[in-house]
Amino acid sequence: MKIPFNKPFLTGKETEYIEDAVMFGKISGNGDFTKKSHQFFKDRYGFKKCLLTTSCTDALEMSAILVDIQPGDEVIMPSYTFVSTANAFILRGANIRFVDSRQDHPGIDEDLVEELINSKTKAIVVVHYAGVACDMEKIMGIAEQHNVYVVEDAAQAIESYFTFSDGTRKPLGAIGHLGCFSFHETKNIIAGEGGMLVVNDDALQARAEIIWEKGTNRSAFFRGDVDKYGWKDIGSSFLPSELTAAFLYAQLENLEKIQAKRRFIWKKYHIGLRLVADQLGMRLPEIPEYATNNAHMYYLVCESREQQKQLLDYLKRKKILAVFHYLSLHKSDFFKQKHDGRELPMSDLYSNRLIRLPFYFELGVAQQNYIMKNINRFSEKEISLQKFQIA
Amino acid sequence: MKIPFNKPFLTGKETEYIEDAVMFGKISGNGDFTKKSHQFFKDRYGFKKCLLTTSCTDALEMSAILVDIQPGDEVIMPSYTFVSTANAFILRGANIRFVDSRQDHPGIDEDLVEELINSKTKAIVVVHYAGVACDMEKIMGIAEQHNVYVVEDAAQAIESYFTFSDGTRKPLGAIGHLGCFSFHETKNIIAGEGGMLVVNDDALQARAEIIWEKGTNRSAFFRGDVDKYGWKDIGSSFLPSELTAAFLYAQLENLEKIQAKRRFIWKKYHIGLRLVADQLGMRLPEIPEYATNNAHMYYLVCESREQQKQLLDYLKRKKILAVFHYLSLHKSDFFKQKHDGRELPMSDLYSNRLIRLPFYFELGVAQQNYIMKNINRFSEKEISLQKFQIA
Repeated sequence: MKIPFNKPFLTGKETEYIEDAVMFGKISGNGDFTKKSHQFFKDRYGFKKCLLTTSCTDALEMSAILVDIQPGDEVIMPSYTFVSTANAFILRGANIRFVDSRQDHPGIDEDLVEELINSKTKAIVVVHYAGVACDMEKIMGIAEQHNVYVVEDAAQAIESYFTFSDGTRKPLGAIGHLGCFSFHETKNIIAGEGGMLVVNDDALQARAEIIWEKGTNRSAFFRGDVDKYGWKDIGSSFLPSELTAAFLYAQLENLEKIQAKRRFIWKKYHIGLRLVADQLGMRLPEIPEYATNNAHMYYLVCESREQQKQLLDYLKRKKILAVFHYLSLHKSDFFKQKHDGRELPMSDLYSNRLIRLPFYFELGVAQQNYIMKNINRFSEKEISLQKFQIA
Repeated sequence: MKIPFNKPFLTGKETEYIEDAVMFGKISGNGDFTKKSHQFFKDRYGFKKCLLTTSCTDALEMSAILVDIQPGDEVIMPSYTFVSTANAFILRGANIRFVDSRQDHPGIDEDLVEELINSKTKAIVVVHYAGVACDMEKIMGIAEQHNVYVVEDAAQAIESYFTFSDGTRKPLGAIGHLGCFSFHETKNIIAGEGGMLVVNDDALQARAEIIWEKGTNRSAFFRGDVDKYGWKDIGSSFLPSELTAAFLYAQLENLEKIQAKRRFIWKKYHIGLRLVADQLGMRLPEIPEYATNNAHMYYLVCESREQQKQLLDYLKRKKILAVFHYLSLHKSDFFKQKHDGRELPMSDLYSNRLIRLPFYFELGVAQQNYIMKNINRFSEKEISLQKFQIA
């Protein structure tokens, strides 16, 4: 591919910091770079308790353990999401109740959540699709009323905010009881594979640290809070190596620079594609009043499934790798027999019609112009075809 | 500490390969370096199916999913092991039946396994302590007779072998249905945090690949075996990043060099400490006929718990970090109420008396001499103290 969908970006210090970690004599988890990364997030976003993980999947699995999912408990989440959002809770025995997406956005339709809550409901998991906030005021209200946990799958949502109706602004990941981030290579800030759990609920913090360290109180031991450590709970090896943390920290130091470039790319797509989108009957992303734009992704919602396929094929012939995204989880081979039969038409619509355009730090102006020019060419071809058919 | 217990070692190509991975445009999991690492293990050890993981813990968790642990199933394993050996199976709902260690070695006492097998038993997990093989002929015989799975916790056991009575020699990790390796910074071959699952049972291979890729058939898709991929099963993000795999591959290229140095260190301890061990009533490690020595660890078994404490303290004053190891899991805060009450005296003995000496690639001759000299000084002090007490 001449223009890939994604391309990881080295800010310059990653391998230097990895060498530092080796020289410091510690490349397993929970060393200096892990602590510095935690501190970065605390300072910038006011997160109370941060724990780097080997993936966002692992942060979601920690969440499922922390909210104490028991077999038969129910968890509510959108169907239009990554498999890990669901698998993390299914591994603990949860039954998933999938919810449809909004008309104007692939995020969970907040108005469809409450009707699914019953005495077995343990948690609502929201996914901030494309880094754009769900209506967290509505979600937190429902959760409080019914006394269920809220887990934010903020995999795509670093450096994104939600504004409450009283004007308070909070970073995504800091609003629910738990927040889960990803540093997978396709994200704004990367570490190959990587993630982070943010623990906002004070009552869950001590246990989070134990679960993170394989079910032991090793962290407390190293802080000097206890004089020996041992096996206290279930848990796993959720913590990433210092190699991963060192790489991540180099990226975090360049967050502003990365975000500035990504916002530039996002805006250029958004201005440049307005006209052709109208011509093709496509929808462009919209940012609600209460949300900010972290420029994680640029997507189009096609007029039809056929148009999605045709445009993806057309761009592929031009050596541009645009891609579709999730497939409705309630219709997957694994889940379709378990689903309760409700139709989730918006989730299916985004599965069949959404296209993500190439988006990465090193995407140049000429490349972006080439992508947009080819979407215009596709449109002209379509329009002349329609004229021909009408004639 | 002047002499740490462990010190990670860069062979020289690690950061170069990490930069290569970035330049190849792929730093998430299952890229070129992951495939090259898998191939290395296949070529060197004849492993059929290898899957790098983010830790040995994760390889054990994959094993628990693959042998299809259901709540109430029983799993037999030594009490003298790391918490992850047990937690991986407890996360799937297993009840653990802990077994004592051998008199002559901290590994599982094979003769105590069969009496614990019943209709609920799903698997036997053996731990090749210090990289020295358990009697796999005995274990596989029991497993076959009772139709239970065998999982090898080969965390410490890279480049170590077992010889069957008919003369056949097999690498550890290739004998049970599943084998789990660690590349944690304390191991012979390191990647910070990291591990690998080896799938020896053909019937488990296809599912292993799906569980590894978050419950999707993405690996088959990328091979071109299926034309689209989706959600097929439970699973997690078990695969490590290419950053981790690149680091690991640089280490693997230097396996022979690393092993030669480690064998030298091991032998030097073994020869140099014979006399003083006899004086102190300590035991040195012994390698059974059927096993090989991969020079993972050098340990002493003290005469008493007091001696362990005194020697550790003495060495600490000399700025030498020697350390004890596992604490019997059946006596942990988490498990003691769940244990069936059997005494496991050898496990307790190793918990209370075993000392691991500093052991890493860059441990110099002068440092090793200094360590051994101080163990001798400790002995002289002990002996003169005894004389004084007798007098």
